[in-house]
Amino acid sequence: MQDTRTEIASLGEFGLIEHLTKNNETQNAGTLLSVGDDAAVIDQFGRQSVISTDLLLEGIHFDLMYTPLKHLGYKSVVVNLSDIYAMMATPTQITLSIGISNKFSVEAVEEFYEGVYAACEKFNVDLIGGDTTTSKTGFVISVTAIGEVAPDKYVTRSGAKVNDLICVSGDLGAAYLGLQLLEREKKIFLENPGVQPDLQNQSYLVKRILKPEPRADIVEWLLEHKIEPTSMIDVSDGLSSELLHICRASDVGCILYEEKIPVHEDTKTMALEFQVGSAACALSGGEDYELLFTIRQEDYERVAKNNDISVIGYITDKAEGANMLTKGGNKHKLVAQGWNSFA
Amino acid sequence: MQDTRTEIASLGEFGLIEHLTKNNETQNAGTLLSVGDDAAVIDQFGRQSVISTDLLLEGIHFDLMYTPLKHLGYKSVVVNLSDIYAMMATPTQITLSIGISNKFSVEAVEEFYEGVYAACEKFNVDLIGGDTTTSKTGFVISVTAIGEVAPDKYVTRSGAKVNDLICVSGDLGAAYLGLQLLEREKKIFLENPGVQPDLQNQSYLVKRILKPEPRADIVEWLLEHKIEPTSMIDVSDGLSSELLHICRASDVGCILYEEKIPVHEDTKTMALEFQVGSAACALSGGEDYELLFTIRQEDYERVAKNNDISVIGYITDKAEGANMLTKGGNKHKLVAQGWNSFA
Repeated sequence: MQDTRTEIASLGEFGLIEHLTKNNETQNAGTLLSVGDDAAVIDQFGRQSVISTDLLLEGIHFDLMYTPLKHLGYKSVVVNLSDIYAMMATPTQITLSIGISNKFSVEAVEEFYEGVYAACEKFNVDLIGGDTTTSKTGFVISVTAIGEVAPDKYVTRSGAKVNDLICVSGDLGAAYLGLQLLEREKKIFLENPGVQPDLQNQSYLVKRILKPEPRADIVEWLLEHKIEPTSMIDVSDGLSSELLHICRASDVGCILYEEKIPVHEDTKTMALEFQVGSAACALSGGEDYELLFTIRQEDYERVAKNNDISVIGYITDKAEGANMLTKGGNKHKLVAQGWNSFA
Repeated sequence: MQDTRTEIASLGEFGLIEHLTKNNETQNAGTLLSVGDDAAVIDQFGRQSVISTDLLLEGIHFDLMYTPLKHLGYKSVVVNLSDIYAMMATPTQITLSIGISNKFSVEAVEEFYEGVYAACEKFNVDLIGGDTTTSKTGFVISVTAIGEVAPDKYVTRSGAKVNDLICVSGDLGAAYLGLQLLEREKKIFLENPGVQPDLQNQSYLVKRILKPEPRADIVEWLLEHKIEPTSMIDVSDGLSSELLHICRASDVGCILYEEKIPVHEDTKTMALEFQVGSAACALSGGEDYELLFTIRQEDYERVAKNNDISVIGYITDKAEGANMLTKGGNKHKLVAQGWNSFA
């Protein structure tokens, strides 16, 4: 039927989405923002809703060997909420669909749901529906989150302007090293089941990968202080990839200062142990679920008062490209080496 | 960690959902209707939205050996739209997430999306977002549909009253026999790859399983004629199962007349060939995506004018149970033998 065969890997996840949705024309006047941001925005009778969805597959997005089901339930919800917060919106409801094999007991599914409900309760969202089915091939989780936002107050990836400051919440790279650590201990365990995992003193890194927290607090703080970011995205695929998303969507360039990238002490220590640069973990690691956003210069003083926000660079003209100034004073072109499940 | 192990099969899909959501308390005032109907209803600033979601897994819900990808894309969308229509609401947007293995080419995914877009165009809904990832284990499809409805005009499963008439659109049982036919031809083909499938003259049955159409027209007709059903559900799991859902949710019983169940001529012929009763196909087959609903007695005359709606029984007191009067004059208790992916 087909004359040619193009491998999906040749396009990658973002390329594939772009390819498949390039001719997608929306019909409903209520569709304000469609495919291509953290979430879509629909106008409902003059007020606005934000919608985001994620698909998590066993063996691709999680490994049940070291992922407690309760944590997995929690994480499945919060990675979606993170997308809603990244629009400067407030999540209100989720739907959850799961596909489970018969190897799961009801008690195991209950554990998963405990985590789901814990996240719902913590972030004040309602589980309003879903689908439950058997799966022949592994655990499948699909979550759709719905949120609300004051009319036209949602923040997209596309509003960054030249000279805006680039900010990021919390610290980066820890989730990546947490994952490396779990993978290392898994390997040791598989080779020698008698050896107990050595995760002592690594609770921060492990928690960052297994039980991430979306930055509801940062959104709340920005709203409270009436600081309107010009663009925003959540860091799920690594700082490089996310910053390039903003640059591309906003049609701008950027300068990122390597020395300004916030990295936790535990991340630095473990990066040394794994012999990788901690900045590389931040740039390409992903799964941090921090918020990356740009602000106007005049908001600098106020943002600087929040110790949990770092200013890490600024937006330039597109012609200058997206670059990082290293600690050594060199200028490197930013490359998206973020996580690509098709690679 | 767990003292007991309860098999999921012992609860079934509906039992499992009920078990997992029995303590689900909603927090947001805007959550009007939560888990347990065709779709959830949320109040957004005084107007109402309807949300529904489905998960379709290769090997469970579809077989790529005889399911053209374009049809699969179309069907993935319309089964969700059917849930929105079953609330007497109008679908407006969908999100679509897919997990695909590397065996798929970009061209194959394009074919799937052609079907998705065809459904979106036909029913005037916008594809507003989603997630695309690799899958190690088969094709995974998750669709969430959003619709709108005039305030408090959505129709649930729980409003049927004693003496209401039970109605169903179109005809039932054809999709089930279409599936049996495809499975038979697949078996023949696997045993003898030289034999061409014998699907001539079976286009109606095959179309019903591979390319179902949601009954947007019935909803439109009811709205136009200002007929307000007291309850409604779409027929995805078989007439018995759906009617029992209405009876349970509405706290009523029912009498169903076997002879009134609408069955297509092609369904009757093929039922004979497969040596099954055509009523049994309608009762337990599923995947018809017709609308099952109840109306007040005073609406009978007007509904009777629509040749595409059959009155098949009436609602009784709960104490009388849910029963079917057979063509032979016997009274049988209705049993949900609908499709259960955990069985």
